[in-house]
Amino acid sequence: MEYPSKLIEQAVEEIAKLPGIGKKTALRLALHLLKQDADFTLQLSEALVALREQTRYCEVCFNISDHAVCEICASTRRDKTLVCVVENVQDVIAIENTSQYQGQYHVLGGIISPVAGIGPQDIQLDSLIRRVAAEDSLIREIILALPATMEGDTTSFYITRKLADYEVRVSTIARGIPVGGELEFTDEITLGRSIRMRTQYSESNGQAGS
Amino acid sequence: MEYPSKLIEQAVEEIAKLPGIGKKTALRLALHLLKQDADFTLQLSEALVALREQTRYCEVCFNISDHAVCEICASTRRDKTLVCVVENVQDVIAIENTSQYQGQYHVLGGIISPVAGIGPQDIQLDSLIRRVAAEDSLIREIILALPATMEGDTTSFYITRKLADYEVRVSTIARGIPVGGELEFTDEITLGRSIRMRTQYSESNGQAGS
Repeated sequence: MEYPSKLIEQAVEEIAKLPGIGKKTALRLALHLLKQDADFTLQLSEALVALREQTRYCEVCFNISDHAVCEICASTRRDKTLVCVVENVQDVIAIENTSQYQGQYHVLGGIISPVAGIGPQDIQLDSLIRRVAAEDSLIREIILALPATMEGDTTSFYITRKLADYEVRVSTIARGIPVGGELEFTDEITLGRSIRMRTQYSESNGQAGS
Repeated sequence: MEYPSKLIEQAVEEIAKLPGIGKKTALRLALHLLKQDADFTLQLSEALVALREQTRYCEVCFNISDHAVCEICASTRRDKTLVCVVENVQDVIAIENTSQYQGQYHVLGGIISPVAGIGPQDIQLDSLIRRVAAEDSLIREIILALPATMEGDTTSFYITRKLADYEVRVSTIARGIPVGGELEFTDEITLGRSIRMRTQYSESNGQAGS
């Protein structure tokens, strides 16, 4: 594509490096910026640079944080006996949005993937073991909330083995038919697993109880 | 949505102000920036600020330009007797990409729209008339390449009336069935118009000739 100006060409090329944004969308965004006040672009670019240069990671759980220790780890209201292990920051946000979990987190920053060349030493696994092994550790249960993929299962298996020597319960979040999901449209693996892993029926909510 | 850090919240809010980008996509983009080198974010934000602060508009045709007069207007190879009137910069890029047009442009920067409160004085109409009226004007034909909408037709009608006193031919780009388009899937208005506006058949390309 030919651009009428070098400035717009550079902006389009930089924007199109972002995931899921092609050159047409990048051009639309660039022309949108030109139509807005200069302040709009300044605020956007300042927010991006501040994000990149000032963001820190919690020393305990490796979640994104404004301080050395994140609000969840620092909170006295959260259950320090529970640690939920997740792949990334989006997963923390997703679980927090459910308001169903009051424990703490451990963000691995990835999962073991031989194909992508990511081994146990590339993610925050040692730090998880150290948290559990610490003398003042209050942790009683590790909840594995990793993706239901080959890589996620490999990582869960690895963590379970590493934690075998410690007095800590290891659980994994329930897999099954999503709430509101139709049986006939559910894949066979999920359906088969949901039958094998069936739970006691509870009358109170018409759902399987915990 | 709750964010683990003020920095990421600010970045997500700024990114989500862009058209077609929601908060989930904005979060994905922000977390992508965190995973890249700091240079990536710096280059992106510098390109955006440079675009917004340094972009100029051609004094003649109001296309985006690096100089006072854009490359198309300054070129000695382009036909100065032809001026194609378009709504915006994207349209110039689209027409240039066809390599079928060697004339010049006039970018209105919008079209007349009573609903959106855009009148003839809000777009580059007077400057178009001045170009045609100039004593040293070489312009022989104005090609209207405006959207096939109520607003586009209104704008075309207005320009045609304003140019009635000048010795200049006013044409409009052909409307009809797109190349490769199926008759049965074409809307009635386009199909009806393409029958009314039929052109002489030319053997050379199997298409209607010009």
